[in-house]
Amino acid sequence: MADAALFEFLHTEMVAELWAHHSDPGPGGQKMSLSVLEGMGFRVGQALGERLPQETLAFREELDILKFLCKDLWVAVFQKQMDSLRTNHQGTYVLQDNSFPLLIRMAAGLQYLEEAPKFLAFTCGLLRGALSTLGIKSLVTASVASLPTCKFQVVIQKT
Amino acid sequence: MADAALFEFLHTEMVAELWAHHSDPGPGGQKMSLSVLEGMGFRVGQALGERLPQETLAFREELDILKFLCKDLWVAVFQKQMDSLRTNHQGTYVLQDNSFPLLIRMAAGLQYLEEAPKFLAFTCGLLRGALSTLGIKSLVTASVASLPTCKFQVVIQKT
Repeated sequence: MADAALFEFLHTEMVAELWAHHSDPGPGGQKMSLSVLEGMGFRVGQALGERLPQETLAFREELDILKFLCKDLWVAVFQKQMDSLRTNHQGTYVLQDNSFPLLIRMAAGLQYLEEAPKFLAFTCGLLRGALSTLGIKSLVTASVASLPTCKFQVVIQKT
Repeated sequence: MADAALFEFLHTEMVAELWAHHSDPGPGGQKMSLSVLEGMGFRVGQALGERLPQETLAFREELDILKFLCKDLWVAVFQKQMDSLRTNHQGTYVLQDNSFPLLIRMAAGLQYLEEAPKFLAFTCGLLRGALSTLGIKSLVTASVASLPTCKFQVVIQKT
């Protein structure tokens, strides 16, 4: 097991580096950085998903898989469980973390809210990647109403 | 404690992303990617160094600090200790890892040796950053004679 802070430090550096690179301050540059981060998260999520024990991969119920992400995946990456999971039973799930570790060091002021998306893109990809390995296509978005609480919305893509 | 593979997966993505970015195939582009990776490693090493217990920071002997890197830092990041540490007692140290985790998935052929530097730059920075937090200025380089064995050479910069 690696030092828990290592991932957090590395994530911070990655976000900073990508922002420095796509230094175009317009929405185009930022969108590109977000999609690069999301893509990195996706591939890491896929790879983590492949490390799951085989019995996990035999999950049949969609809800079981979502519960697994909230518990096992979250503990593996963030050393805590997701705080709540809700669903409309029609393929949409809302996963809420009341103190999301990658936002926790950010001061809790309204003026910082606009900075939040760049600290969420990687994790959206991570969830989408792990779901993909488990055979589920999805769209994952995140929203922050008040720091450091964060909601991830997972919409299952039916084939 | 985070899943040990998380760091490895993230490192792989980081290297791939930086190589895609600085797509200039000439030595200039590659040099820039290496120095970006080294810089990221340096800042992560500094941050990890700051998490060390205070008694560690009271090390007096240079050799103790290098031993600390070989043991505690290496375990925190790679879940194993460095295999050997040698010194000329004049400020140069050679740290050898006989199966460096970030090289271990690389096939062991001569043709892959030229790919090795991009998997070493981050870790060189990591060592330099941790040393910097412990009050030591250094130059850190790495070399690979046969995969996956790797030697890190630390040259202390006397003030």
